[in-house]
Amino acid sequence: MTDTLFDDNTQVAKARSKKKTSKTRARAPRGKSAEAMAAKQRDISVSEFFSKNRHLLGFDSPLKALLTTVKEAVDNSLDACEEAGIIPEIAVEITQTSEKVFKVTIEDNGPGIVDTQIGKIFGKLLYGSKFHKLSQSRGQQGIGISAAGMYGQLTTGKPIHIFSKTGKRKPAHEFVLSIDTARNKPEVHSSEEVKWDKDHGTKVSIEMEARYQKGARSVDMYLKQTAIANPHLTLHFTDPSGEKVTYERNTKEKPKETIEIKPHPHGIELGILIAMLKDTTCRSLSGFLQEEFSRVGATVAKKIITAASKKDGAGTLTTKSYPSRIARQEASALHAAIQETKISSPSTDCIAPIGEDLLIAGLKKEVEADFYAAATRPAAVYRGNPFQIEVGIAFGKPGGVGLEVADGGRIKKKDKVKAMTEDLVGAADEPARVMRFANRVPLLYQQSACAVTKALIQTNWKSYGLTQPRGALPIGPIAILVHIASVWVPFTSESKEAVASYPEIMKEIKLALQEVGRKLGTHIRKGKRLKREYEKREYIEKYIPHIGIALQEILDLSEKEKGQTVKTLEDVLHKSRKF
Amino acid sequence: MTDTLFDDNTQVAKARSKKKTSKTRARAPRGKSAEAMAAKQRDISVSEFFSKNRHLLGFDSPLKALLTTVKEAVDNSLDACEEAGIIPEIAVEITQTSEKVFKVTIEDNGPGIVDTQIGKIFGKLLYGSKFHKLSQSRGQQGIGISAAGMYGQLTTGKPIHIFSKTGKRKPAHEFVLSIDTARNKPEVHSSEEVKWDKDHGTKVSIEMEARYQKGARSVDMYLKQTAIANPHLTLHFTDPSGEKVTYERNTKEKPKETIEIKPHPHGIELGILIAMLKDTTCRSLSGFLQEEFSRVGATVAKKIITAASKKDGAGTLTTKSYPSRIARQEASALHAAIQETKISSPSTDCIAPIGEDLLIAGLKKEVEADFYAAATRPAAVYRGNPFQIEVGIAFGKPGGVGLEVADGGRIKKKDKVKAMTEDLVGAADEPARVMRFANRVPLLYQQSACAVTKALIQTNWKSYGLTQPRGALPIGPIAILVHIASVWVPFTSESKEAVASYPEIMKEIKLALQEVGRKLGTHIRKGKRLKREYEKREYIEKYIPHIGIALQEILDLSEKEKGQTVKTLEDVLHKSRKF
Repeated sequence: MTDTLFDDNTQVAKARSKKKTSKTRARAPRGKSAEAMAAKQRDISVSEFFSKNRHLLGFDSPLKALLTTVKEAVDNSLDACEEAGIIPEIAVEITQTSEKVFKVTIEDNGPGIVDTQIGKIFGKLLYGSKFHKLSQSRGQQGIGISAAGMYGQLTTGKPIHIFSKTGKRKPAHEFVLSIDTARNKPEVHSSEEVKWDKDHGTKVSIEMEARYQKGARSVDMYLKQTAIANPHLTLHFTDPSGEKVTYERNTKEKPKETIEIKPHPHGIELGILIAMLKDTTCRSLSGFLQEEFSRVGATVAKKIITAASKKDGAGTLTTKSYPSRIARQEASALHAAIQETKISSPSTDCIAPIGEDLLIAGLKKEVEADFYAAATRPAAVYRGNPFQIEVGIAFGKPGGVGLEVADGGRIKKKDKVKAMTEDLVGAADEPARVMRFANRVPLLYQQSACAVTKALIQTNWKSYGLTQPRGALPIGPIAILVHIASVWVPFTSESKEAVASYPEIMKEIKLALQEVGRKLGTHIRKGKRLKREYEKREYIEKYIPHIGIALQEILDLSEKEKGQTVKTLEDVLHKSRKF
Repeated sequence: MTDTLFDDNTQVAKARSKKKTSKTRARAPRGKSAEAMAAKQRDISVSEFFSKNRHLLGFDSPLKALLTTVKEAVDNSLDACEEAGIIPEIAVEITQTSEKVFKVTIEDNGPGIVDTQIGKIFGKLLYGSKFHKLSQSRGQQGIGISAAGMYGQLTTGKPIHIFSKTGKRKPAHEFVLSIDTARNKPEVHSSEEVKWDKDHGTKVSIEMEARYQKGARSVDMYLKQTAIANPHLTLHFTDPSGEKVTYERNTKEKPKETIEIKPHPHGIELGILIAMLKDTTCRSLSGFLQEEFSRVGATVAKKIITAASKKDGAGTLTTKSYPSRIARQEASALHAAIQETKISSPSTDCIAPIGEDLLIAGLKKEVEADFYAAATRPAAVYRGNPFQIEVGIAFGKPGGVGLEVADGGRIKKKDKVKAMTEDLVGAADEPARVMRFANRVPLLYQQSACAVTKALIQTNWKSYGLTQPRGALPIGPIAILVHIASVWVPFTSESKEAVASYPEIMKEIKLALQEVGRKLGTHIRKGKRLKREYEKREYIEKYIPHIGIALQEILDLSEKEKGQTVKTLEDVLHKSRKF
């Protein structure tokens, strides 16, 4: 017997409702029965879902679809190279095949992909190696590249082409495949051995409806920023007009090797804990805690279990309890005990920041400015996930006001003026340009929804010498780069465009910004001092000759005497300026 | 043989790259081979995906999780009642079971759910009847209620309880189930026959970590707005403190029956067309076009096929071509021909707006104000999907400035003052309050990302008598309700919080706003006139007695004569005011 809530609320309502319901049924032959409705229920494949909702994955316009495709493929290449210990070289080519259709090709020197995996990796959504493990990588979901292929197929009907070679003595293979959207399965049209003059690598080609355009959210900008955040990468790009750019690597040092970690106990939800207890092969609770989590040794395990055993409903929990026989109530006590027990922060071997030196080197190479600074914060933790924030800035622009102020007029000519610099450092009266990165991947969309932007706005830039309107970005000729590296970046959407504003993340970003802000403040103040000195010098040089003439008249000096007096005066004054 | 892009770019780069690569491999024993990586690849279940990314579904905070759960369950109840032709009565109850844990129960008088479907509907993500059909419904994806159950399970470890009864003479059943997240399958713990004193209906109970709070984005507000947009619904709510509210229905009229439609040819993408050609049971191209699409008859089909046959690569397309043998190139020609052919707009039987009268009735019932207006636009089409926009406004607030202006001081006392009215019509110096609805479902989050807000801001409210700061909502004591009804509402995220800004949708919203705006303008102008009249009357009443005293002195009148003179003067002046 179960209650009805209607009773609880109002007897009147129930009575009225009943009357109405029967009346309704009598006059409503159109109504479907539960049985008729049941016949309509069916499975929705995840690829059907994302095909209809493809804007969720970044395929909402032809312009963005192009960027998303390049991004997903380049991310995969970089991840694969990193995992294989290869210094990456990647080539991106976009060609126009008809008015609205472009062909995107991405080739890498990565480890290649074994034949049996190619179908699933490119022809099935939610398939991959990165979702289940905790270590820093660009990809997370196992959706990106297959979704790009699906978009191509949806808009042009054409399959995607994949070339792959896994070693010098192994044959290269070409695969042509589509996604069977209704079943979320690869449909391989052909796979054959081909010759490929290359030791190892992968090349993928997708034709799609797209639009190509340069600018702040372009493929060009994405690649440029990727080069900055990945100084060990050599990157070639051929745009649809045939123009070629190469971003040469500026270090041969690979990013620090990251180590996969076990989840930290403080980030585990009760439901997950229960599932883990059920799935583990460990035969004792103590062993389970030590085996399945990071930072739990025998002592901590014992502490947790002792604390848990004192809680209501904990039953007979001991270190020797058999994990899969632990009931929900007991697990709940265990979960509460875990939260209360002090456990050291997770190891940070699992994340690899770019580092202050390489960050500055990357900025110097691609952004023309007069002052560079960077800060890498120590690792921190949100919801049990380690993360690390770093910030780099480039300030002052040749020809811009910021530079004049900062540099007292000494403009250094760079070897070559980079075409796109103006996009990265704005004018003195423009808002700061922001470059956001998550695990070395540039984020180009949804700037205002991102924790980075929010932290930037909440930082007081006035104290570092910049102007800043209320609730807005600081104003000045400055590019600010913020990088979050984490084993699991909390994005606000699958298209991975903005970082969610966890308080711990916001705090770390602000601390990093303050660190570079202080360096910037010192520089700007020095610049202002220099400017004042320069102005004083100018005054001296401007007025002393007049003083000379006046003295000449008063003291009746000869031309030579006047010259000497002026010179002496200048020397004395310059000395007293303490320049 | 396949090319390498590296060659195409720079021979130098390739040579350098090769050297580096081999060097790298020599010194990088840590690197994983393609084979080692393959071993790590695996399927990700859609429930694992959404469990880890549950913020995408609206479960990002305990506060929002509670709202999302109520919303998903109520949406399902309303959809089911509508489909079964039942006038809905729904009861929502939230009780607190421990500091952080709440139990949410939603009961309806709907058709119930047959036993065999209960597991999948509540215990499997991406399962449902609404994804594949084109007709207006609240649910779309087959994710919502199972995700709520999954969230409950994740945070409390507890399964969900479902009671269902499909008819008077049928037994009621109670199901207790969880989701097997790793496999996205229901795990039924128990299912038994129970007594339930009710003809038919469904009741679902979920326990979850949550937070309850009243306010602009609360369960209370969601239910209140649901009652406004569904005037045929009786809705009971018991909050955690035990307080009960009932929103009585104010019409027995059910929403217009909506009819499922076939897709409109202009909204079909090439990839979908190809898939449809492959899957159809039709045996001729002409038949296929008429059978599978709306608004295509024999003549239009012939026009399309003739146009297609003239295109490059169309091969030998005729009305009799066998659909499944049509090649990609031919399909592409067909697709282009469809876009060029004039085809009438889709039928709008598939959408059911609330209607101007019911909209105003709903507003009057729940929002205390002095002026109400509504406009329902004719149906329009975006990307082949019919949609319809309606707008309602409530203006002027008892005790507020707007009312004084509008009503010349005649304040009507309502029977009862509703507790939450102040949330729906703001003060005269506050921005307009916006209520957004999609298929009668209130949208409470992401207001600024929504097409509705954008259209509201882009409308010139100054010409209707409100003030409006640049790029902001109008200022005034006004509540503005915007409803979009469509067979497929384009949301910006799975959590269905904001409508995407398709130009066609923006245009229709603006036209509807202008329509009510004009009515508002007339009212406000009339109000201002009234206010001026009122002021004049006040002047007369204030100064005439003084004139009386003056006249008394000048003409030496008795008190009685003075009184008469004043009376006469007042009468004359009031008459001449043409009030």
